[in-house]
Amino acid sequence: MSVILGIDPGLASTGFGLVKEKGGELTLLSYGVIKTPPTRKVPDRLFVIYTKLHEIFEKYDIDQVSVEKIFFNTNLKTVVNVSEARGVAMLVISEFGKEIFEYTPLEAKKALIGNGRASKRDVQFAVQRILNMKKKPTPDDAADGIALALCHIYTLPYIRSIEA
Amino acid sequence: MSVILGIDPGLASTGFGLVKEKGGELTLLSYGVIKTPPTRKVPDRLFVIYTKLHEIFEKYDIDQVSVEKIFFNTNLKTVVNVSEARGVAMLVISEFGKEIFEYTPLEAKKALIGNGRASKRDVQFAVQRILNMKKKPTPDDAADGIALALCHIYTLPYIRSIEA
Repeated sequence: MSVILGIDPGLASTGFGLVKEKGGELTLLSYGVIKTPPTRKVPDRLFVIYTKLHEIFEKYDIDQVSVEKIFFNTNLKTVVNVSEARGVAMLVISEFGKEIFEYTPLEAKKALIGNGRASKRDVQFAVQRILNMKKKPTPDDAADGIALALCHIYTLPYIRSIEA
Repeated sequence: MSVILGIDPGLASTGFGLVKEKGGELTLLSYGVIKTPPTRKVPDRLFVIYTKLHEIFEKYDIDQVSVEKIFFNTNLKTVVNVSEARGVAMLVISEFGKEIFEYTPLEAKKALIGNGRASKRDVQFAVQRILNMKKKPTPDDAADGIALALCHIYTLPYIRSIEA
């Protein structure tokens, strides 16, 4: 059994999804977004992300963490903000002694849909279908968090067979 | 009296300088670099930065913090790594309830030397002269940390006069 946390870091909104894998069966334990108020200063917004991630790590027995790798085709301002949030997420991962795995949005989409250029809606649809959810996961960032957890679970067997 | 901490964030090396200002007189309280081993994973390297910055904030009664703003003329890989370290530094600033001020390397050089294109050596020389240091501050990143603290101190009187 493995519990995988997927994190899609962002300063305004950090998506997350927590998926349990047991003998090939997948269960969605939790998902959502950590939102930070745009009126607050960046250090305080990062502190909100830090505190909420801490709560998730304390509440669940997480085995591995899958984090979105920076996609370089975005603008520099976005890269800076996302990286600052990513830095805080990675700090929490280290504090709790967990292993980090990183995937680009393209890799996550490929693993779930087979097409790296799939839309946000395609990702939501794929996540809903894979986890038998009654409604599609919203907002986008939460769906991306779940997709990252699933991407890591799908990638794992290959890693295991290489190691064996 | 004000105690200003300057931080030049970086994943491999985070420079810092702590300067006390009292009635126009400047005293260098501490300076140095936080180095992280390149053999370790990024989350663990960020944890080293986090722990060491915590120690500095616990040891000294810091009033304000001056942090280097990302200089966009660098490559993207550097922007990501520096932003991740910056994110952790800003988190600590928020944890200790301190105010953050940000300056680009160009602004810091201009404030100290009057020339935004000054070399690393020029910065070391200026810092040494301003603080009457027996030898020049090394390494570069530590000198940059001190320079950021000095830049903020030099900028403060103008802010005060506008507020007055």
